[in-house]
Amino acid sequence: MSTDFSRLSLNSATTKKWTLAEAVDGCARAGIPAIGPWRDRVAEAGLDKAAKLIKDAGLRVSSLCRGGFLTAADAEGQAATLADNFEAVREAVALDTQELFLVVGGLAPGEKDVVAARQRVADRLEELVPFASENGVRLVLEPLHPMYAADRALISTLGQALDLAAPYDAKAVGVAVDTFHVWWDPELKAQIERAGRENRIASYQVCDFNLPIAADALLSRGMMGDGVIDFATIGTWVRDAGYTGDIEVEIFNQEIWDADGDTVLETMKQRYAELVLPYA
Amino acid sequence: MSTDFSRLSLNSATTKKWTLAEAVDGCARAGIPAIGPWRDRVAEAGLDKAAKLIKDAGLRVSSLCRGGFLTAADAEGQAATLADNFEAVREAVALDTQELFLVVGGLAPGEKDVVAARQRVADRLEELVPFASENGVRLVLEPLHPMYAADRALISTLGQALDLAAPYDAKAVGVAVDTFHVWWDPELKAQIERAGRENRIASYQVCDFNLPIAADALLSRGMMGDGVIDFATIGTWVRDAGYTGDIEVEIFNQEIWDADGDTVLETMKQRYAELVLPYA
Repeated sequence: MSTDFSRLSLNSATTKKWTLAEAVDGCARAGIPAIGPWRDRVAEAGLDKAAKLIKDAGLRVSSLCRGGFLTAADAEGQAATLADNFEAVREAVALDTQELFLVVGGLAPGEKDVVAARQRVADRLEELVPFASENGVRLVLEPLHPMYAADRALISTLGQALDLAAPYDAKAVGVAVDTFHVWWDPELKAQIERAGRENRIASYQVCDFNLPIAADALLSRGMMGDGVIDFATIGTWVRDAGYTGDIEVEIFNQEIWDADGDTVLETMKQRYAELVLPYA
Repeated sequence: MSTDFSRLSLNSATTKKWTLAEAVDGCARAGIPAIGPWRDRVAEAGLDKAAKLIKDAGLRVSSLCRGGFLTAADAEGQAATLADNFEAVREAVALDTQELFLVVGGLAPGEKDVVAARQRVADRLEELVPFASENGVRLVLEPLHPMYAADRALISTLGQALDLAAPYDAKAVGVAVDTFHVWWDPELKAQIERAGRENRIASYQVCDFNLPIAADALLSRGMMGDGVIDFATIGTWVRDAGYTGDIEVEIFNQEIWDADGDTVLETMKQRYAELVLPYA
């Protein structure tokens, strides 16, 4: 079994109990060369200190999670959204990553008009792209599983993300392929091919889709191999689309969060080597 | 408020506690002119007796729920599937409905290859269509919400259902628009328009998408108005696509199942009159 972990990245949500410093140390101990931190962990450490401790450990930052939540319906909410996303861009720069994930947000409170809410995503994106581009940061549109459409992200398919990205340069707006969110999509192969042609694949995130769906539906993400996802097939599509970047493992799962972090990283390396790497 | 209930149909799953006879009586009391029975309730009553009691009450059968589960990977399972679906066609004939819902099934046990499993759906459909057509029964492909893709239905979008239906006459294979399953789809308007052009809309089912997702994810269906769905917009699209058939209310929801059946039907009529009928 190949044990080339040079493209493996730990998304910090996978080891939720760990501070950023602990996650960085864990990656260093495990020989994992990259990390995808969440902004709350960065803020907790302090931005400059976070950047320094990652750099001092010799790690890359594969992406920053996350900006977005662009669907506020009122002027005040929209201004706050933009300010927060500008700040996220600055954090990405400080952390030396080009990839800023956007989870675009769901319906406004009480709203039911998905068409209007999606239009607001497009409108905010138009305001946000120039600032991000000037700072050398790519906005990464992440389609989320349709079960989160109402309350987390009204981008539900890779095709839809690519349509939203279409007005912008591929260096300015990319898309994420997160196996959990997109594995079910009958258009997945065609849209991954399209994303490749358009040079928009900014991130490949892996985790499994566990059944039954967890009582808290957000926590149904599983360790690769524990659920229903065919990593060989999707991985091959992503590879054939030309993606050669980092492969982030991002898992929200109570059992994994409750486990010892070093053990989680060892399991993650093993499953990655067995199920993901041979097709990467 | 208009109170024309001439297109309203009770799917028997909404009043799960009721036997078929009780549901038929409930519809008669409430002035609901149509019913969509599930096969288990029909079997419990006995097919001939079920047909007679529905007819004697003066009700229409808007559809029969459900055949399908076409994804067995072994020859024995596939033969059993076909036999069961042939039987479902015979039941539809006996109940005097042309519309037989198919929930097509998910992955086989241990399987992860969605591409192969979807091909088996197409293969079984090819074997099933001639028998159904000879008997005057239309097979109704129902896209299910992607959260059920792995274990219930590998048809996840209306577009995918239409692609599967494409080789067959519109009288032989139709599609269902169930608001719960499809509301999130960014392609929904375009695919409802396509379904109208192709004369394939065989059923319009309404219920809401409740949040948070229920601990048993199957039970997140809600009474119209209790969740996030915009019935005005989707209803207008379905109407403009030319659909003039029955509108079935199908809700799996523990609280509704625990409530008094007559009260549920009254609420259903009220919400239908308020949220669905003005756009139908």
